[in-house]
Amino acid sequence: MPGHARFTVEERREHLLELGLRLFAARPYDEISIEEIAHEAGISKGLLYHYFPSKRDFYVACLREVAAELSLITRADPRLSPGERVRASVSAYLGYVQLNLLNCQAFVRGGIGADPEVAAITEGTRRAIWERMLERMGVSSEELLLRVTIRAWVSFVEIAALEWAEAGAPEKGQLIEVIVAALVAVIRTSRRPEATPEDRPRR
Amino acid sequence: MPGHARFTVEERREHLLELGLRLFAARPYDEISIEEIAHEAGISKGLLYHYFPSKRDFYVACLREVAAELSLITRADPRLSPGERVRASVSAYLGYVQLNLLNCQAFVRGGIGADPEVAAITEGTRRAIWERMLERMGVSSEELLLRVTIRAWVSFVEIAALEWAEAGAPEKGQLIEVIVAALVAVIRTSRRPEATPEDRPRR
Repeated sequence: MPGHARFTVEERREHLLELGLRLFAARPYDEISIEEIAHEAGISKGLLYHYFPSKRDFYVACLREVAAELSLITRADPRLSPGERVRASVSAYLGYVQLNLLNCQAFVRGGIGADPEVAAITEGTRRAIWERMLERMGVSSEELLLRVTIRAWVSFVEIAALEWAEAGAPEKGQLIEVIVAALVAVIRTSRRPEATPEDRPRR
Repeated sequence: MPGHARFTVEERREHLLELGLRLFAARPYDEISIEEIAHEAGISKGLLYHYFPSKRDFYVACLREVAAELSLITRADPRLSPGERVRASVSAYLGYVQLNLLNCQAFVRGGIGADPEVAAITEGTRRAIWERMLERMGVSSEELLLRVTIRAWVSFVEIAALEWAEAGAPEKGQLIEVIVAALVAVIRTSRRPEATPEDRPRR
């Protein structure tokens, strides 16, 4: 990317974030240096530091980008019925993962792992999606089990989408059905006051 | 832990691994130094290096410990029926997570994230559990969607167990039912050749 003078500040920032997501998705955080990022972007280290004070700040900015897009994409039209909203959100999410596989891999699998700020971004995005669902479903704070299992369902969707896209994105319509069926099963079983005798576990 | 001469090599190693799992579960990998580990263990840095050549080696050894335990604990009695085996494995897994919450948090959420060796251990453990299930269920390599969704179900269990234990481990028997119901829904819907009209998504 020579001739960087052609870019505005905002375009340059956008370009750097795209580059970062590509790099961080391909190799571990520790292996990628500021030198490499600057070199790949065709700019000086000094200019890169002007945009992002450290490699970590750059990484965090990249993740925030994915988080914002994911949050936007999973907001379904509020005029739809609950079932239609779930289908629309899941479909949009799968489409996003398919088109942005590397970025989503970085987002889901993490780049610097247990780093608290990074974890706060990825976990914050999951929580936002999860809380939106709980609110829409009218789940009270006392329904502990349902809260736990809906949260786990969000991870189910996340991993299903990633593995599905990595497997060549087969049968999208049917995957949406599986995801919806899992949600229905989770809600029904979590809310049921008592397990029926035939599927009660042996203790 | 003064008076380290009382410990055998194997006991010392075990003690160091337990200490490491506790430390890595509590704070990010980057914040924990070899000095701190040695200090907490009441031994010299030199002796610690004798057991583990680097902090990373130490961390990887800790994760391997959790991986081995998880693999062992989820192996159900082969004489049980498929449904009973799933219930027994899930029940054992939940019990393990409840008793070893910090270690499981470190295992599931990662300590050095995208590090390839670490990812290989955690992902390898998931894959082993997943492949055991696929084999038992007789899933062919062509059933792509089912393979993807069973893999996602494994993550569902992992996150459900963690969130459940963090929420104070309420209603274990019912959580097992939710996990089994989710698996049944996932298998049924993934294997169904065609979605039925009433739950087909609107396109």
